[in-house]
Amino acid sequence: MRIDKTFTEEMRLRFERPQKPFRILLVEPEIPLNTGSVARLCAATGSKLVIIGKPSFSLESSDLKRAGVDYWEFVELEQYESIDEFIEKSGDSNIFFFSAKGEKSYLNCDFKMGDALVFGRESTGLTKEITDRFINRLFAIPTVENIRSINLSNAVSIVLYEALRKSGCLKNTFYKV
Amino acid sequence: MRIDKTFTEEMRLRFERPQKPFRILLVEPEIPLNTGSVARLCAATGSKLVIIGKPSFSLESSDLKRAGVDYWEFVELEQYESIDEFIEKSGDSNIFFFSAKGEKSYLNCDFKMGDALVFGRESTGLTKEITDRFINRLFAIPTVENIRSINLSNAVSIVLYEALRKSGCLKNTFYKV
Repeated sequence: MRIDKTFTEEMRLRFERPQKPFRILLVEPEIPLNTGSVARLCAATGSKLVIIGKPSFSLESSDLKRAGVDYWEFVELEQYESIDEFIEKSGDSNIFFFSAKGEKSYLNCDFKMGDALVFGRESTGLTKEITDRFINRLFAIPTVENIRSINLSNAVSIVLYEALRKSGCLKNTFYKV
Repeated sequence: MRIDKTFTEEMRLRFERPQKPFRILLVEPEIPLNTGSVARLCAATGSKLVIIGKPSFSLESSDLKRAGVDYWEFVELEQYESIDEFIEKSGDSNIFFFSAKGEKSYLNCDFKMGDALVFGRESTGLTKEITDRFINRLFAIPTVENIRSINLSNAVSIVLYEALRKSGCLKNTFYKV
């Protein structure tokens, strides 16, 4: 009886793991709870987590593990020294950059499965060098007046689920453990 | 010169504050960092934050204030003892409930400005009493297999920005401080 109950309780609305996973790039992240929460999101969406440069915390941090809950085993993690190293190895044909200072809305991104979505560090966002260089692929999440930015993991959530929606990944859902 | 620089640095992509604000209801929230992060999101979107029941922390908690950054002054906060008290005073015509156990996707919600979006506590979600009673208005964010749920403030972010998109709030954007 207990098995049935657990089974029922763990039924959820699912979508097929994308054949080409989205890649979430965090550049030099500073707050372990945010990276952990993004890791959990990556596990939940079959996305890869890519850390660019050196995080301000150890990848063994307990805050990081806690925020990722027990989903770290489902997270495919990659690390690169720089955006340039990532582009060298992965190409740059489907990269989008997100910054509070972007002038175009994330709703204008023509998302496709497998895109790389790049987010800057919490305190300073992406560097001017990056935002200047990729100005044509720089997007923002609009907010009302007088607000500078929203939380990093919330921003990743908004953009990633819009990317999943727009690329058709969420069209077919089913109910399963 | 410094004023100009600051001005330019605080330019952001904006949307008009919704005439009827969305209302984000958190039922008995447990983790101050999540509620703080949702408060920041409410400030960023001109939404109301509604706490239902007793949170597991003081509304003066320093974690709560920190996660809300310095946006608490922009947050319109309401508190109700129960969902029933909220419905009594606000009506129930435009309430949506979100739960990892929902069987319909949040993409099927017919969002309109001013909707009330209800989220359960972190550890247990909405009670069975609530999910049974409002089963027709119960929605989930789909995930891939073997994942139980995503972080509360990430879930609120995904649903709220989809509601803003679908209700047309993000259609007209402009670049401003």
